Amino acid sequence: MTSSDPITRTERLLRSCRGEPVDRPPVWLMRQAGRYLPEYRRVREGVSFLEMCADVDRAVEVSLQPLELVGTEAVIFFSDIFTPIPGMGVEVDFAPGPVVAEPLRSLAQVEKLRVADPRETVPFVFEILRTLRAELEGPQVPLLGFAGAPFTLAAYLVEGGGSKDFAQLKRMMWTAPEVLRELLARLTDLTVEYLGAQIEAGAQAVQLFDTWAGILSPQDYREWVLPTHREIAARLDRRAAPLILFVNNGAHVFDQTLESGADVLSLDWRVDMAAAAAQAGGRVSLQGNLDPCTLAAPPDEIEAQVHTLAAAAAPARGLILNLGHGCLPDTPVEGVRAFTAAARSLAGGAK
Amino acid sequence: MTSSDPITRTERLLRSCRGEPVDRPPVWLMRQAGRYLPEYRRVREGVSFLEMCADVDRAVEVSLQPLELVGTEAVIFFSDIFTPIPGMGVEVDFAPGPVVAEPLRSLAQVEKLRVADPRETVPFVFEILRTLRAELEGPQVPLLGFAGAPFTLAAYLVEGGGSKDFAQLKRMMWTAPEVLRELLARLTDLTVEYLGAQIEAGAQAVQLFDTWAGILSPQDYREWVLPTHREIAARLDRRAAPLILFVNNGAHVFDQTLESGADVLSLDWRVDMAAAAAQAGGRVSLQGNLDPCTLAAPPDEIEAQVHTLAAAAAPARGLILNLGHGCLPDTPVEGVRAFTAAARSLAGGAK
Repeated sequence: MTSSDPITRTERLLRSCRGEPVDRPPVWLMRQAGRYLPEYRRVREGVSFLEMCADVDRAVEVSLQPLELVGTEAVIFFSDIFTPIPGMGVEVDFAPGPVVAEPLRSLAQVEKLRVADPRETVPFVFEILRTLRAELEGPQVPLLGFAGAPFTLAAYLVEGGGSKDFAQLKRMMWTAPEVLRELLARLTDLTVEYLGAQIEAGAQAVQLFDTWAGILSPQDYREWVLPTHREIAARLDRRAAPLILFVNNGAHVFDQTLESGADVLSLDWRVDMAAAAAQAGGRVSLQGNLDPCTLAAPPDEIEAQVHTLAAAAAPARGLILNLGHGCLPDTPVEGVRAFTAAARSLAGGAK
Repeated sequence: MTSSDPITRTERLLRSCRGEPVDRPPVWLMRQAGRYLPEYRRVREGVSFLEMCADVDRAVEVSLQPLELVGTEAVIFFSDIFTPIPGMGVEVDFAPGPVVAEPLRSLAQVEKLRVADPRETVPFVFEILRTLRAELEGPQVPLLGFAGAPFTLAAYLVEGGGSKDFAQLKRMMWTAPEVLRELLARLTDLTVEYLGAQIEAGAQAVQLFDTWAGILSPQDYREWVLPTHREIAARLDRRAAPLILFVNNGAHVFDQTLESGADVLSLDWRVDMAAAAAQAGGRVSLQGNLDPCTLAAPPDEIEAQVHTLAAAAAPARGLILNLGHGCLPDTPVEGVRAFTAAARSLAGGAK
């Protein structure tokens, strides 16, 4: 790579995922299409979250907004990890997190769950992706798909919604392990189908969000979570689209995520980037991991943090700059702009 | 130690804190005087949480309950980490977590905080402790004091209550660091005074609860939290009463807690006990760290887990069996009994 031979944003992201040479790390933000943007709030006005996810025009519009408004270098389609769940035959509402009318507690309930073709149950998802991909061909910006990981989906389904302790879910491990095992098996099948169909519809990389797996001890994680990640990584066509794995609050299972088969590990801010990069070496690329609250800092502080982060990540085979969690609703827009600008200011030249 | 020369519960706990030989690890549970006990709920009926903390008779009664009812081997006085805060001049309510009428956001507000003598602002705390200590002299059961750590107290005071992200607090680090620094300084002084007075009133060991410090990145923790722990450890009379430090969700800062000066590190269930024990070696003792949800498992499973835990902790200089977090309200009482029984079943003989 030389400056006379510029790399496209799509190439920069996909090469970073695979650990191939790039001029500098690409940058995007989890929940970059979100309430911190006045333009997003305008489109969201008067529609429920579920309506918004199924409204192709609006979903496409908000997915594209951060490209121009804050200078992000990848587009992730607007949706929710719970989008494909009603298609299994589960009644779900959002308030704002998922609320499940009848929490799953018995084998009979779990055995009624359908693993239907997501192209039939949520066709709008693939229409959104196809539309976005067509829009992004010109500017050569990469399109990301995503899905909730089986354990996280199971957590909501068993608990009935969000929870501080997820005690019902954890107790199921001890009192009805066969129910949880069957539930995870069906959700794993669903996730593979869902991400596969997203790749077919144009997603160039896919991110698996395991929001709640970090509540487990390392032993329980090895038994209940790692196998689901490994199965998904093995069954997806990762040459068609690399797999990014985000385990929220997962510093204590970082070594296990290295065994997941994912191409990229997305880290939250609790993980020390230098230590993670040293451990990851040439095996996987890393993504992250600025604390979202840092975007309230002055621009020069944000820039300094990004430079520190990039230097710390140097031993890893590749880095994708991102936050350690979703962008918070009251994040200053100028903080987000400072973050993407700092990424672009990183020294050029192949690593 | 031989079986003909039995060790008292007080000796077992204090020796374990200091890494001296014991026959087997002692056992107690965080939040052992709590809603999972019908006898506790009976005493709590009709009184608010604040009234309960200030009611010496009731507080003493519930503090002692778990001794006989579930076989715990230490008593921690019933109270809340926010008990000494109104004495600083802050209006606080419980609903059920602390709710602060006027969140602290300015230097002027912080400079109005008094570090008053807790013997004057919360005399009932020391009456509870003196009464408990007198009760426990006969059976030779150790009495524990405790306090909230400065960062956790600051988190509630700045945010105004509990929070998912503590974004206000974290933003203060970037936008008004001098305010947070002054707040932490005053809370550190308060904590030293408060724990010192507890020791004087009969507490034989004291635990510092840093419930929210785990929300920080390792870098921010080093700047904002570690110095407060070090100062408290240095200023307390730890020969009079060893210091136990609990950083909730702190797997990613375990190495920094080793530098805190605490005698015992209380671990949550996310920390791999074998790895922690190897790292701790002869420097500190460890406490924990069974996932509270595990107490819903069958007794033989709980026993197996306790034996695994004790074996994993062997390289540490001492172990105090406990949960990785407070006992949950819907924990089966028989699970708690199985936990303490398992501790007593551990092979005797000095380590």
